[in-house]
Amino acid sequence: MGPHPSVAAIRLAVRRVLNDILDAARAPSPSAPDASSPRLPRPLVLVACSGGADSMALASALAFEASRAGVRAGGVTIDHGLQPDSDLRAREVAERMTSLGLDPVDVVPVDVGRAGGPEAAARTARYAALDATAERHHAVAVLLGHTRDDQAETVLLGLARGSGTRSLSGMAAVSGSLSGVPEAALRYRRPFLAIDRQTTRKACLVQSLPVWDDPHNTDPSYTRSRVRHEALPALEKALGRGVVEALARTAQLSRDDADALDAWAQDAQRAATRPDGTLDVAELSALPPAVRRRVLRRAAIAAGAPAGSLFARHIEETDRLITAWHGQRPLNLPGRVEARRQGGRLVLQQASQ
Amino acid sequence: MGPHPSVAAIRLAVRRVLNDILDAARAPSPSAPDASSPRLPRPLVLVACSGGADSMALASALAFEASRAGVRAGGVTIDHGLQPDSDLRAREVAERMTSLGLDPVDVVPVDVGRAGGPEAAARTARYAALDATAERHHAVAVLLGHTRDDQAETVLLGLARGSGTRSLSGMAAVSGSLSGVPEAALRYRRPFLAIDRQTTRKACLVQSLPVWDDPHNTDPSYTRSRVRHEALPALEKALGRGVVEALARTAQLSRDDADALDAWAQDAQRAATRPDGTLDVAELSALPPAVRRRVLRRAAIAAGAPAGSLFARHIEETDRLITAWHGQRPLNLPGRVEARRQGGRLVLQQASQ
Repeated sequence: MGPHPSVAAIRLAVRRVLNDILDAARAPSPSAPDASSPRLPRPLVLVACSGGADSMALASALAFEASRAGVRAGGVTIDHGLQPDSDLRAREVAERMTSLGLDPVDVVPVDVGRAGGPEAAARTARYAALDATAERHHAVAVLLGHTRDDQAETVLLGLARGSGTRSLSGMAAVSGSLSGVPEAALRYRRPFLAIDRQTTRKACLVQSLPVWDDPHNTDPSYTRSRVRHEALPALEKALGRGVVEALARTAQLSRDDADALDAWAQDAQRAATRPDGTLDVAELSALPPAVRRRVLRRAAIAAGAPAGSLFARHIEETDRLITAWHGQRPLNLPGRVEARRQGGRLVLQQASQ
Repeated sequence: MGPHPSVAAIRLAVRRVLNDILDAARAPSPSAPDASSPRLPRPLVLVACSGGADSMALASALAFEASRAGVRAGGVTIDHGLQPDSDLRAREVAERMTSLGLDPVDVVPVDVGRAGGPEAAARTARYAALDATAERHHAVAVLLGHTRDDQAETVLLGLARGSGTRSLSGMAAVSGSLSGVPEAALRYRRPFLAIDRQTTRKACLVQSLPVWDDPHNTDPSYTRSRVRHEALPALEKALGRGVVEALARTAQLSRDDADALDAWAQDAQRAATRPDGTLDVAELSALPPAVRRRVLRRAAIAAGAPAGSLFARHIEETDRLITAWHGQRPLNLPGRVEARRQGGRLVLQQASQ
């Protein structure tokens, strides 16, 4: 008799990702050692585990699949220090991972700051700690337990920003760390993005794995918690079952669309840039608005405008120097970048200090 | 003292659209007579009015702005025949339009079929009647009262389909009729897409215009009504005020992105098509997935597959003939279209009867 369907599903998802990781690790790279060399230890894959059903199911599937795939499996749990006795809980999660056969298993305490609100601050601290842990152990990858439900929530959160296709593209199945080391470009993997939360719960249940429900997940003062417990159920009620799946599919399609448009904008920016670094207005005018606005955004950032302070209205005003030119004055963009039109050229330049 | 801000807002929106309509009508066209010729009557603009606050506000603003812009203003109300006494109500709406000074004013009864569900069937019947009315009166445009709130609802309905950027692009500010006559390519105009429903209500109130609330709008058996009264309020509660605005902005950005990607796909399809009508696999492989899938969809439709029966899974399977080729058998697509790979070529062909 095979495993329960839920267990089969989570193991298959992890098996596929481990194969991808090994393919990527074996690909010749000038900076990474050859992972298939028999003299080297087997590569290490870490799972980031909060003790919740999603990541506990992920830890169990990694423990099961690792030796078959020829990798070592370890785990890490972050102690955010946001609740009393969080250190005890983190140690308990670590013990569960050890008893699944993971080794090494680390508990990493972090200091959560305040920048960007409580959720963003916890996230920043968490990823910095995961990066440091991966680098300390020379891990080839870190698995994250985000499910299709998390993906749907992320799309709704992006929708609320109203900033377009990229913000609807949710979480990537593969993403790099911000630490900038080349080996980290494919560090984070999300094997469960096509698996629903219910399946991970079931897999824990049938494997008798104790799980811990983070009280933050039901705390209505967190936006994501309100999306999960209020907005998504209301959407399902109004639009019918299948909303979560539709949102997850939207994420994938939006990501592909945004990637294609970014590639186009990159080429178009190159083609429109003159030897003196200014942009050719005739070239820009011939582009579709979606591509032209992306070129202008890239050019403004290249000139020194901080991406986070550059809003749609800045780009729209800059665009009007091209599409609705009537002798406007130069514009001031964030980061002391000035946008001005000079005849058939658009000049984006940072003012000197 | 000027008009109430709500009245000023709806008039400004209509004034801008009337200017656009006149610009388009004056542009030289081989098929249309020159609208600026003094011998011709002033062009006629119709408003489609249900008697609700949105379209009643629109009718009032059109009546006010028309003579200033140099156009004639008429109105049309559709009697869907779905409620007892709907003919009386339609005549009442027509009388209100007449008393605003609109002329001609038509009441058009329609037979609502059943194809596609009650909302789609009513919509199909309504637009066919509006097209016929516009053509009967040689109107240059038909104004529709859709507001920013309607746009937000449309984006959510598109999101529930999960079919990507185009389905998130909501309603266009300018769209053509399906009747195919060239003059109808820019027939429908939605002046209120950036105006919220509350403003149109207020404008009716301060102008003492009686409005009629369509019971369908609050009938929970209609999907749009559930989106309006349940889903959107829940989203606002979870994500904060500004959700409607974010959704409307998403519509505009998605529309521009979808247009740009469609343009790219059109060029790419031309470049990848060989003289014998087959597609070059090497050319297709070099495209970003988002563009390649659009090319495949276009090619399948060109080969005879009905657009409405062509789902994402059909395109994905066809894509695997390019990206994951391992000698697959030919695929059967809707409309008896067969997709098969022959060496470096992809063949999409309809089977003979």
